[in-house]
Amino acid sequence: MAESITIKILPEGLSVQARPGELLGEVLTRAAVPLNRYCGGRGLCGKCLVRIVSGPLPLLEGDEKALLEARSLTTDHRLSCRYEIRAPATVEILPGSRAAAISVLDAGFCPPLTVDPAVKSFSLEIPSPSLASPRAVLDSLRDALGLPHIVAPLSVVKDIRLPPKNGRFSLTVCLYGENEILDIETGKSEEDLYGLAVDLGTSTVVAELLSLVSGKTLSRAVAPNSQITYGADVVSRLSFSFQNSDNLERLRNSILQLLNGLVSELVAKAAVPRNRICEAVIAANTAMNHILCGVAVDSLALSPFHAVFSRLDPFPASELGLGLHPRAKAYVVPNIKSFIGGDITAGLAASGFAERPGNGLFLDLGTNGEIVLRKGKHLYATSTAAGPAFEGMSLSCGMLAVPGAVQKAGWDDGFDLKTIDGLPAQGLCGTGLVDIVALSLRQGLLGPDGKITAPGRKIVLTKSLSLTQQDIREIQLAVGAVKTGVRMILREFGVSPGRLDEFLIAGAFGSSLDVENAGAVGLIPDVPADAVTFLGNSSLAGARKLLLSAPDRAAAEGVARRIEHVSLASRASFQDEFVGAMTFGR
Amino acid sequence: MAESITIKILPEGLSVQARPGELLGEVLTRAAVPLNRYCGGRGLCGKCLVRIVSGPLPLLEGDEKALLEARSLTTDHRLSCRYEIRAPATVEILPGSRAAAISVLDAGFCPPLTVDPAVKSFSLEIPSPSLASPRAVLDSLRDALGLPHIVAPLSVVKDIRLPPKNGRFSLTVCLYGENEILDIETGKSEEDLYGLAVDLGTSTVVAELLSLVSGKTLSRAVAPNSQITYGADVVSRLSFSFQNSDNLERLRNSILQLLNGLVSELVAKAAVPRNRICEAVIAANTAMNHILCGVAVDSLALSPFHAVFSRLDPFPASELGLGLHPRAKAYVVPNIKSFIGGDITAGLAASGFAERPGNGLFLDLGTNGEIVLRKGKHLYATSTAAGPAFEGMSLSCGMLAVPGAVQKAGWDDGFDLKTIDGLPAQGLCGTGLVDIVALSLRQGLLGPDGKITAPGRKIVLTKSLSLTQQDIREIQLAVGAVKTGVRMILREFGVSPGRLDEFLIAGAFGSSLDVENAGAVGLIPDVPADAVTFLGNSSLAGARKLLLSAPDRAAAEGVARRIEHVSLASRASFQDEFVGAMTFGR
Repeated sequence: MAESITIKILPEGLSVQARPGELLGEVLTRAAVPLNRYCGGRGLCGKCLVRIVSGPLPLLEGDEKALLEARSLTTDHRLSCRYEIRAPATVEILPGSRAAAISVLDAGFCPPLTVDPAVKSFSLEIPSPSLASPRAVLDSLRDALGLPHIVAPLSVVKDIRLPPKNGRFSLTVCLYGENEILDIETGKSEEDLYGLAVDLGTSTVVAELLSLVSGKTLSRAVAPNSQITYGADVVSRLSFSFQNSDNLERLRNSILQLLNGLVSELVAKAAVPRNRICEAVIAANTAMNHILCGVAVDSLALSPFHAVFSRLDPFPASELGLGLHPRAKAYVVPNIKSFIGGDITAGLAASGFAERPGNGLFLDLGTNGEIVLRKGKHLYATSTAAGPAFEGMSLSCGMLAVPGAVQKAGWDDGFDLKTIDGLPAQGLCGTGLVDIVALSLRQGLLGPDGKITAPGRKIVLTKSLSLTQQDIREIQLAVGAVKTGVRMILREFGVSPGRLDEFLIAGAFGSSLDVENAGAVGLIPDVPADAVTFLGNSSLAGARKLLLSAPDRAAAEGVARRIEHVSLASRASFQDEFVGAMTFGR
Repeated sequence: MAESITIKILPEGLSVQARPGELLGEVLTRAAVPLNRYCGGRGLCGKCLVRIVSGPLPLLEGDEKALLEARSLTTDHRLSCRYEIRAPATVEILPGSRAAAISVLDAGFCPPLTVDPAVKSFSLEIPSPSLASPRAVLDSLRDALGLPHIVAPLSVVKDIRLPPKNGRFSLTVCLYGENEILDIETGKSEEDLYGLAVDLGTSTVVAELLSLVSGKTLSRAVAPNSQITYGADVVSRLSFSFQNSDNLERLRNSILQLLNGLVSELVAKAAVPRNRICEAVIAANTAMNHILCGVAVDSLALSPFHAVFSRLDPFPASELGLGLHPRAKAYVVPNIKSFIGGDITAGLAASGFAERPGNGLFLDLGTNGEIVLRKGKHLYATSTAAGPAFEGMSLSCGMLAVPGAVQKAGWDDGFDLKTIDGLPAQGLCGTGLVDIVALSLRQGLLGPDGKITAPGRKIVLTKSLSLTQQDIREIQLAVGAVKTGVRMILREFGVSPGRLDEFLIAGAFGSSLDVENAGAVGLIPDVPADAVTFLGNSSLAGARKLLLSAPDRAAAEGVARRIEHVSLASRASFQDEFVGAMTFGR
């Protein structure tokens, strides 16, 4: 047996044993210190950074070298997924590297909710069969429900217990709409009914456990989308699924395990039995919901780019492999056309956008930028490939909006950075990024064309944090894509920005985006100042709303159907427009 | 390794090797010579008789001795389930002992059938998605079907293949009613659609494979109900299921394996792939359908004797374990009240009994005797425990209506026996039994009280075949039960036998029962001669009709619901009536 090496982990003060040659990332996983592993431990994302307090500091090479140099962290920082254990060491986990820390991500705009879920429980008394009336138990039950045609699945009928011989007996019946019996239990237990609302994002997955009786959120759990191992964005995951026929199942399995893990966390936090969860409502973009369902995604990546389904009927959650009530249902929020997914349908439902009069624009800033324009009673949608820059990916110093992330910035003879929880700055999240770009433009560190004019062609934020020219190019592409989409769709339907009654921003920015800076960068056109509202994670808020209200589902399905899709990328003018939009500013 | 012993099997002329001490029944099973094993090889039913042409003839003991003495077969016949191999032997299989020979059992009255099944296939052309119209495949399909709300199960959506890039493409869609898509295939295959009609009887199981396009029966397979191992009649199987909690599953598994075996036989005969069978319609009595579905039968055996379900919604056949199309449905023909099962509902459907005007009586003579009275628009039903005598069980010389069974008898200075296929008489089936009892009464060999007056207190038919006093008692009980039921229900509702417009007899007797003899015995009351019709296996005929016609299902469910159940056994007068009815004659 090989000799074992002691690794001390700070700030926990844990000591763990490692084998020579083992990677630090693996050792930390084993010690239940969960680090961000966006790139699946391939040394590409730089999100699993640790400080080597004592111990060997091997020479830096390749990607790791580039990543650490960009952040001036070469002296004592290393990526845990690249650090091979050779001798005893003490390592400090940076707050921003911790996966668990994402739980502060916002939970989305919470509209007033009506609790009228698809799954309901009723307590009933039914007469026991007698010699004079030896009725079949199921017939008596259908009568008592007043639903003679409700479907009783065989597995429910199999579980029916022999009623007592005389008098009446109490049952609790769990129904799915007026269509189907999900469960029959003896005694009264109608308060004990739960549902799951899931925002399955390309980068991040958020799940909530709700009571389907009170409508309250009982617990919340968050994790980076584990498919990041197979590619940071949708396109690279679709490509991965082409490589061989098992890869779709690999992607599916990866997200399924993640979801089941989140469910374990949710039920443990709320002390609810997991087989009491009777429905899961899942809001996700088209690629994510196809993958989760194990439905072929080839057609999403190849011209003419179309989905297999837009709407799926509710189906048994067990067909996904989710470990809930054995007959729990899964409801996938319907997609709007092939490119615009259920996350947007959910966002529209949460905000009530489609039901209001007047002109409005709904902008979801995630890995994709989806845009929905309301002009009177008409709805038009388009999407742009913004890339993951706003979510803290693809930049040398980007990170999710977790403790240690620069969330806001001002100027006081130099950058004045505000981080989440006031921790030392570890990187930039979306809102901080917009502030810094706007300030840099204002201070002349950056030209409107995106060229860094600051000394050393770097925008230096702290000793260890700066934006490179490459970073700025990524931001220009992201801003340009969104700006092009918004401009083109407004022009197409003859709505000027000043005539917008509302401009809703959903997605990564939460509610802390500085409107003036966003305008200066070019993310928000020249709309009336009071028109702008931040929705935060409206996909999650919508999943929650559609979980709690079955009538709202029918409405959301109607909205998804009537939105007209506008394909901008196929227009001849798109490329010119896009190049022009790369210039920062409105 | 032990020495092996050669056993020669006639008339095949096969030679097989056996281990010393092995039972002949096992050796024959291994050699694919399937014998009747009603009692599961426990030496009780006497149905696996063979003649030992050469080889050891061990001394007879116990049940085997009694069974063979009753048939005067002690010299050279033995039960194969009791015969231990000790030395080489040549054995002859009697035709009546062969399980496969049951295939001549009648297929039931075949009413004119409308082909309008629940499962249908349509070939469609749908437009390929294009850049201008990148519609989701499933949306285009729903449009083409004109069924926007049809449910597409996830497993169907998963199987959707990428359509070609341009033009239109052909699909064949298999639908379950207007509710659900069962399958989507590329190309045209709408002719290739099959269904299963099953009569799951207490003693015998018959299954047919039908084309759901032409409505034709393509193959038929029959086997004794394998649950006979656990008891010959319903009551003994219910008792068995009480003994421990695994026994219900044992019973279920036994019948499931049998059904899957029959399906293998059906598809092999008809050269149809088994995954093209999209629905199974199963007609069975209440106990058999509860057991097949794995639903608790305790309440059927204990006062107040009630069922768990009367009607089950169609459910996936895979939930039963039937190996058909992966999404094939199972439709269990609904029961009429707790005692009268789906076999009777099916029989009523096949005969159109409930739809005709006037007075009528429907009598199903199986192990139970079920009686349905129609008086104008009203329907009343009751059941009596006839026992298995009419099906050839429980008598020393009884057998199913298979080659070698005495089917008819006349008198020409002695019994003149007619056997099926003209083979030497092996035993009596139901119709022969009725003839012989009627002749014996007429010839003074038997008193109306059931006492044998013939010399030796035996009614001798051939050298090896005779009816004992015990056999006559069994027949008296069976006839008496049916007679009591018919008499009481007619009296209860004020219908005299002479006022019956029709008297339908379904079940074991097929169409060869002699009406005059049946009257002499007391099975048929004094009804107008032209009122009597024999339906044969009307349960199978009904399963076939309900498989081929979805509208007829709704009608049959309505009939099942509106029949009023009359519990005769709980009447104070029942016992007196029953004792009186034991006397042979009208």
